[in-house]
Amino acid sequence: MDSLHGKRIAVVGAGAVGSYYGGMLAHGGHDVHFLMRTDLETVRANGLTILTKGQKIQLGGIQAAASTEEIGPVDLVLIALKTTANAALETLLPPLIGPQTALLTLQNGLGNEEFLATRWGAERVLGALCFVCINRTAPGVIHHIDHGSISIGEFRRPVSPRVQAIAEAWQQQQVEAHAVDDLAGERWRKLLWNIPFNGLSIAARANVAQVLADDGLRITARALMDEGLAAARQLGHDIPDSYADWQIERSYSMGPYRPSSMIDYEEGRPVEVEAIWGEPFRQGTAVGVSMPRIGMLYHLILALTRQDK
Amino acid sequence: MDSLHGKRIAVVGAGAVGSYYGGMLAHGGHDVHFLMRTDLETVRANGLTILTKGQKIQLGGIQAAASTEEIGPVDLVLIALKTTANAALETLLPPLIGPQTALLTLQNGLGNEEFLATRWGAERVLGALCFVCINRTAPGVIHHIDHGSISIGEFRRPVSPRVQAIAEAWQQQQVEAHAVDDLAGERWRKLLWNIPFNGLSIAARANVAQVLADDGLRITARALMDEGLAAARQLGHDIPDSYADWQIERSYSMGPYRPSSMIDYEEGRPVEVEAIWGEPFRQGTAVGVSMPRIGMLYHLILALTRQDK
Repeated sequence: MDSLHGKRIAVVGAGAVGSYYGGMLAHGGHDVHFLMRTDLETVRANGLTILTKGQKIQLGGIQAAASTEEIGPVDLVLIALKTTANAALETLLPPLIGPQTALLTLQNGLGNEEFLATRWGAERVLGALCFVCINRTAPGVIHHIDHGSISIGEFRRPVSPRVQAIAEAWQQQQVEAHAVDDLAGERWRKLLWNIPFNGLSIAARANVAQVLADDGLRITARALMDEGLAAARQLGHDIPDSYADWQIERSYSMGPYRPSSMIDYEEGRPVEVEAIWGEPFRQGTAVGVSMPRIGMLYHLILALTRQDK
Repeated sequence: MDSLHGKRIAVVGAGAVGSYYGGMLAHGGHDVHFLMRTDLETVRANGLTILTKGQKIQLGGIQAAASTEEIGPVDLVLIALKTTANAALETLLPPLIGPQTALLTLQNGLGNEEFLATRWGAERVLGALCFVCINRTAPGVIHHIDHGSISIGEFRRPVSPRVQAIAEAWQQQQVEAHAVDDLAGERWRKLLWNIPFNGLSIAARANVAQVLADDGLRITARALMDEGLAAARQLGHDIPDSYADWQIERSYSMGPYRPSSMIDYEEGRPVEVEAIWGEPFRQGTAVGVSMPRIGMLYHLILALTRQDK
């Protein structure tokens, strides 16, 4: 796959992230099919609306399907389901998969490439990290608040032509896309933000601006990052201290942004506890790194999210 | 003071703890005066009711006053206000204080003896730790749920005759009272329970039974205890590991007990954040002990309790 032109693309999990990144490919004229449930009729009637950087992108003629059988085999699947719904992929993905189909997970946290590789073969699997503040504010309406870069890589392999092709397709839509060799390292880089900010959004019920404005929470966020940094390094990913500083700095422009976990938690939806805190905690402690704060945060969020079920 | 007989006693802060321990002295025929506000008329009309160990103790003829001026100078003041209201003692205590008046704080956490000593002289100050599960369930009605021992000591001095006399007065009412030499050490012993169980009651919204039933929270509770234990030892208090084990074990009989901080938090009243988490965290870190979990818990609770103001 040297280019996405003429390729069939499916988006499974058309929430904010799937609709935005899939929508930007549709905007570029690609053949994108969205699996939709609650938003299906609205999107068929009105298309997708993406509010981004003061701009309103109205995408008509969106191909929205009620099932993956309806879509059929594709060349590339963008997977943007919540990780808590991964079990559903067992039935959702097979109708989309042909001999050459690539599976690109845009999901949060650790463990998703492994999940896909175990079931459909490691050679199909790609992963991407979305550094983006984005919310679905109404059916078919995506509000892109800040940032938006995406880092794409092969699962445990260096950058390939298909990774380059996918990155270029987004770049042509002014989405800052990067092809990366160390996908697992990129996952840890993103977790250095998600672990503290998604975590404190639940445990301290504080949005990004509130964490940054409260001395104790800001110190706690940085201490959580440092524990994650130690784990990532012990696992072989070379991330400098300055990266954590930059993650804090870039958060100021987000304002009172509510991380996805906060919205999930407040609305009573499943929170991605294992992908964001459980799996990093287990991987770090397995290689001997002390993670007292991440462990405690994991256990607090497990308990808080269980109670609300 | 070799005996409490014939002594005038005042109780400032007649919530659950003050009413119970003061009430048990009144039950023994001592001359106890309760400063009351919301419960004043009810207690004047109906006395105090203490439900304890399947027994109902009905105390008539309770001397309840609306001000400390009305009570006048006494020999002993039991102080059971919330530590968050300590500033009120500046005006509440002076009318009670004569040349020989002893001040016994039954309050939670660290810093209370120091507060009294700074203002009214270290020689007056005594402290006590109440290991008791107790709630005020209605005006004038105290529900004594479990435990009930009290450890009494001088502020930075060994046991004295007055400490013995006070302990004996409670012992005569079947309250398990101990005179202790190392009051500060006893405070740390009690904090080893309060730090995790009061803390997780807010941060994980879990009562005692819920903490014990959840593997992650129980492990977290024990890890918090271990950090407190390390701090207490570094500060010169000789507490064995088996004490932490015992604190966990004794908690099983408490059932779904809601620590006082949980009730305060849920009802929107001030939580004793500094006495229970802030001061122990500062004292421990000042002597070089690493307390990552206690520090994080402190900052979470500070943030959670600030938001609700």
